[in-house]
Parts: sequence; structure tokens; C-alpha cells
Amino acid sequence: MIETAITRESQSVIFQVEAIDPRTQARAGRLFTAHGEIETPVFMPVGTQGSVKALTQEMLETLDARIILGNTYHLFLRPGLETIRQLGGLHRFISWPRAILTDSGGFQVFSLGELRKIREEGVEFRSHLDGSTQFLSPEVSMEIQHALGSDIVMAFDECTPYPATPREALDSLELTARWAVRSRAEFDRIKNTPRSNGLAPLLFGINQGSVYPELRRQSLDRLLEIGFEGYAIGGLSVGEEKSQMYEITEFIAPQLPPDRPRYLMGVGTPEDLIECVARGIDLFDCVMPTRNARNGQVFTSRGKLNIRNARFARDERPLDEECRCAACRRYSRAYIRHLYQSGEILALTLCSTHNLAFYLDSMRQIRHSIALGEFAEFRLCYLEKYRSGAG
Amino acid sequence: MIETAITRESQSVIFQVEAIDPRTQARAGRLFTAHGEIETPVFMPVGTQGSVKALTQEMLETLDARIILGNTYHLFLRPGLETIRQLGGLHRFISWPRAILTDSGGFQVFSLGELRKIREEGVEFRSHLDGSTQFLSPEVSMEIQHALGSDIVMAFDECTPYPATPREALDSLELTARWAVRSRAEFDRIKNTPRSNGLAPLLFGINQGSVYPELRRQSLDRLLEIGFEGYAIGGLSVGEEKSQMYEITEFIAPQLPPDRPRYLMGVGTPEDLIECVARGIDLFDCVMPTRNARNGQVFTSRGKLNIRNARFARDERPLDEECRCAACRRYSRAYIRHLYQSGEILALTLCSTHNLAFYLDSMRQIRHSIALGEFAEFRLCYLEKYRSGAG
Repeated sequence: MIETAITRESQSVIFQVEAIDPRTQARAGRLFTAHGEIETPVFMPVGTQGSVKALTQEMLETLDARIILGNTYHLFLRPGLETIRQLGGLHRFISWPRAILTDSGGFQVFSLGELRKIREEGVEFRSHLDGSTQFLSPEVSMEIQHALGSDIVMAFDECTPYPATPREALDSLELTARWAVRSRAEFDRIKNTPRSNGLAPLLFGINQGSVYPELRRQSLDRLLEIGFEGYAIGGLSVGEEKSQMYEITEFIAPQLPPDRPRYLMGVGTPEDLIECVARGIDLFDCVMPTRNARNGQVFTSRGKLNIRNARFARDERPLDEECRCAACRRYSRAYIRHLYQSGEILALTLCSTHNLAFYLDSMRQIRHSIALGEFAEFRLCYLEKYRSGAG
Repeated sequence: MIETAITRESQSVIFQVEAIDPRTQARAGRLFTAHGEIETPVFMPVGTQGSVKALTQEMLETLDARIILGNTYHLFLRPGLETIRQLGGLHRFISWPRAILTDSGGFQVFSLGELRKIREEGVEFRSHLDGSTQFLSPEVSMEIQHALGSDIVMAFDECTPYPATPREALDSLELTARWAVRSRAEFDRIKNTPRSNGLAPLLFGINQGSVYPELRRQSLDRLLEIGFEGYAIGGLSVGEEKSQMYEITEFIAPQLPPDRPRYLMGVGTPEDLIECVARGIDLFDCVMPTRNARNGQVFTSRGKLNIRNARFARDERPLDEECRCAACRRYSRAYIRHLYQSGEILALTLCSTHNLAFYLDSMRQIRHSIALGEFAEFRLCYLEKYRSGAG
């Protein structure tokens, strides 16, 4: 069983911390996946249905995105497991040779409200596409993510709604903890069975506990007992105050194992990213850069602007004068505004390109500043400039 | 006035015929514009509002499109003349360094139906955007196209509706002829006045006369009296039988001056293109490759297919196995079908890329076969294969 031994050996190095900021919890690291190394901190563009909206995979490569997200719920319903299996897994299906993280499907299922019924065994729900009855559980989620060929698999959790009483949050985190045990067991059972690629994926556990520090710690204890290749903080950015999100992150991140990657799910604005790097987070994902792009909202080094605004009608500057992305190198604000006003698809592609470039470049700059031991200064300058007002 | 002399001198070579097929009217040529040479026969992608829909300008360059269309009516209404003037013309505004042909605005205005009133002086119409009253005439159209910095300017014509009685067609072509005189005069008056670039544009006259050969000839006589740098055949592909479109093209194209480029407006399918090259046409434009792409209709060397069809759900082949475009090199039919089913923008970008690649490649192959003296054989093979059925 030499092959298995090699796989296990190579998997023993999951994450290397390369630099730690002396004055904050910020760290620069390197995450090893079956589809390449990822320098952290990193932002992961969201490709819900197997496409980061309005961009080609070539554009993502030009942006040097190293890892993107896929969505278990959506891909399970369409094109469906059998199709993806037959087409050799998600990487091959969407022609993306770099890393993919898949969520567990839980978050979407719980968002269905009246359309779902939670039991100990799992969640019965009705497809938003055709109303058919479907079922997700830790075991099914692991099976789907295995078939997708995901590099980073998320444990099946209940994303505790906000607000939740301490009692509700406790019940929820305990369900998540029991499901985490089952996720780990099923993941381990199938991880060495044949799948689209021979390389072993990583399983991340998800911390819950709403806005209650003691419950967060309780959830963490359960996860640490099980043991995961990485740890995610879930159930934030779901309606709580921003200060609460920062506080919980600040409380829980430093308690996560230092030699494992830390992922703050669904966060956030550029300010959130740098603030949560300072609190010890390594991985982020958020639909904001692409979704907001489609509404004309552009992130720049000097803050946000809405390109549909009339004041840009004759503005020959690029979206961000400091950006070197494909949109900023070639097109003016005036042209992009015109494209929006005219309902042209190209508007969405250009703004999505730029917004992701801004997010990914910000993370690279943050990483660089950590490596140089200058993160604290960088953070101040970055935020001051970002808040100074755009264009 | 050395500069003017040079401009005139360089303009004296507008078009060179490089090869003529011995058995048909097909010809290979080279058209000289202020923004580069164009090898003909050529297909011109349509960029109505200053964007070839769903594509970036980089993608158009990768496809080696040498000339695209812009739409006077749309650009006049939005972003408007003053904005485009201030931003240095259309090439600079949209960041397109190669050639641009602009239509005269006539076709769109006449499509407005109840919203427009035709007089000898010009056409009063209501904007489809805000209902405001606007006016287009030969002089206004020349002014707009001059401000846009168009390389090929179209005379302001009335696109004769179909069907038209001989009397209606005659009245219409006579109006077009009188407007052609005014277009020529205004174009010549302003062509050497400062505009966004110093290079002189070309003015094309438009042949009308509906489906009546004698009226087509009458219209042509009027155009030849005036004299243009190129000649377009208008008023076809507007509802008449396909056989009538071919017959009129076959009748009128060989009567056009052999040393001037010939442009068949708004045509057509891949079969139409090769059939009309055989009848002596050099330039084509049509929304079909991009518009049909957005409905999932794909043109391949073996005919059309609709990628939304369920039979492609697990088809790992590219859209066209003989195509080397960016979409076919990387993505499967199964993936592109999934993107359509999921409402992903990327579906539109990939199919538009491929369809334009197919059109542009077809024209390059046609040109090559003419140069080799093998057009007749190529035409047979191309059509046989195209009609053999896709996938």
C-alpha cells in the first residue's frame, strides 16, 4: 500500500505558517491541496453553480485566483451527482485545474425556510428548481462532495439562524457537533475510495454558537475532540452587528489549532477582510465582489463607488487608478457606465473582474506586509485610504 | 496643403482585388481604412451600443476581428454625441483600435413604426429610451458618424420595407437617392474638419429597390452618378424569400464598380455568406452569430445545434470539434449546457465567442480558397458538411 502511505505522508503537511505578525494575530501561510498550493491569507471567489459569475476560467487564472468555491446544494440539484460523476468530477466538468472548496449544502438548505424539515438524521427539503423532495445529511453531503472531487470538503452543519436564544444556539451547535462526528466518519470511510482524482481532500469542521462566546468555545471543544484538517467559523455575517462578528472572530480564532487553516465563512467587505486577518483568519469567501459588481458597485483602493452614477458619464479614468486588472488597463469609467446604462453584459464582466482583482490584490498585499513584519502599518494605511472616498 | 494631398493620395487606394475566382463572382481583396487593413471577404461583428454583446474587446482581438459595427441611432441617443465627442470618438471611448463601420441610423429609425415621421428633410422620431423628439437627416447622420470617428460611414437611406409595390419601392429609392446626394455633399464638406483622428473615412452608398431588378438598377445608376468609396446592398433580409435575396444579390453585385468594396447589409446565415461571396460580395454584418448564441443556438462546421438540448447533458465534446476558439479549446458541451440551464452569463460569452469564431474562420477559409483558385470546390464541401447535421 505504498500509494496510500504516500498520500498520507503528503497529507501530513496541510498548512505551514510562514510568518506571524508580532502585534496582531495575522499570519502568512501556505495551504497544500490536491490541486496546488495556496498562499494565505486568501480570498476565494464564489462559483455557486460551477461558474464565478460573468467570468471565464481564463479570467480567473489571469487574476491568479488559486481556489474557488463550488456549491454542493446547487450542483447536487443541477446538473446532479450522476452527471458530474460521469464527467469526471467538478474540476474537469468546469475546466478548472486549481483548487476547489465546496460548502456542505447546509447553508442553502436552511435558507429554504418553509421548504425544509430538520431531523436528527438530516434535512428533507424541496428543490427550489422543481419542487421535488430531496434529502441531505452528513453522509449524503460527504458523498456529494466526494463525487465533486472537492479539495476542501466542509462538514455538514446547521448554520444557526440569527437571532437565536442561548438555548436555541446550544441545541443547534450540538446538532452540528453530532453531524460533525458523522461527517468525519463518512469522510474517512470514503476518502480513499476511487474518485475523480487520486489525491486526498481535506475536511474542515465548522464552529457555531451564534454570538455567545461560551457556546462558541463549547462548539470548538467538540470539533477539537473530533479533529479536522482545518477549522471554519460559521454562523457569522448572518444579520448580527458588525462589532459582534469582529468580537466572536477575535475570541475564537486564536483558540483554533495554530497549525491548521482558519476559514471565516461568508465574510465580507474589504475592511472585514483586513480586520479579520488581524484576528487570525486565513481564508475568506464572499459573493460581495461579484454580486455587487452586477449592481454597478465597484471596490477601489479609495473606497466604493457606484459606476452607474451620472458623475462618471465623462470620466476617462479607470475604475481604480491603482489597479492593473484587465478592466482597469483598458476601459474608462465613462465606457463602463455606458455599458451599465445600456444593459450590456460586458459591464458585469468588467466590474466583476475588477472587484475580484481588488479583493485578490488586497489579500496579496496583506500577505506581503505580514511577511515583511509590516502588517500593522499596512492595515492602518489601507483602511485610511479605503475610507478616504473614491474618485 | 500637403496634408490634404497626402490624405487624398492615400485614399486613392481604397480597395485592392487580389484574386478572382474563375468560375464565380467571388473575390479576395484588401480594404484600406484609417484603422487598419481588412482582408475580404470579411464578416463584421455587430456592436450596436459600443459593445459586441457578451464579449470583451480582448476576445474580439483574439478572434482577429478586424472591423466591427457601431450603431448611429443607439449611440446618438446614448451616451449621446457630446459625450462621445468629449471622450475622443468611438474608438477611444470603447477602446477598440481597429476599424469601425457605423450604420446611418436610418434602419433603426424606420423600424420605429408609429414613433417616426418621414419628410423630405429627414425623419422626426421619438427616442425609444425616453420618448423625446429627435431628428435624423443625411446631414445629421453625417455629423454623428463624423463625431463617432467612423472609418466607414454609411449614407443616410430609407430601408424600403417589405413587401413594397413597385411604386412604393420607386418612391423610396428616389428618396434614398436624394438623401445620398446630400450625404455625399455633407460628408465631403466635413471630412477634412478636425475629428477624433486625422485619417479620412470612407463613405458607402446604399442600393435600394426592393425585389425589383429594374429598380435596383435605377437606384444603382443614381449612386454611380454620385460616386462612393464603397457600395452597399440594403433592403434585403427584411422578410423576402431567401431565393429573392440571392437573385437580387446576383443581379446587382456584378454591376457594382469592380474596384470598390461591396457590402451586403444584415446578411446572414453561414450558407448565405458563402453563397453571396459567390455572387461577388466582400463585406457582411449580421446580429445572428451573437443574438442566436444568447438563445443557445450554436453554429458548427456540421450545422446548427441548440446547446440547451438535453442530449448534450453529458456530451464531453467541444461545441465544434474542428474549432480552435477559446470556448472550444477548453469547455465541453455538457458544461455549456449546464451554464444555460443555470442562467449563467458565461454561457452567453462562450457561445458568442464560438459563433463569431465560426463566422470569422469561415470567411478566412473562403478567402484562402479564392486565393488558391479553389473556391468552387471549397463551397461545395463547406455546404455539404454544414448540411450534414451537427453532433
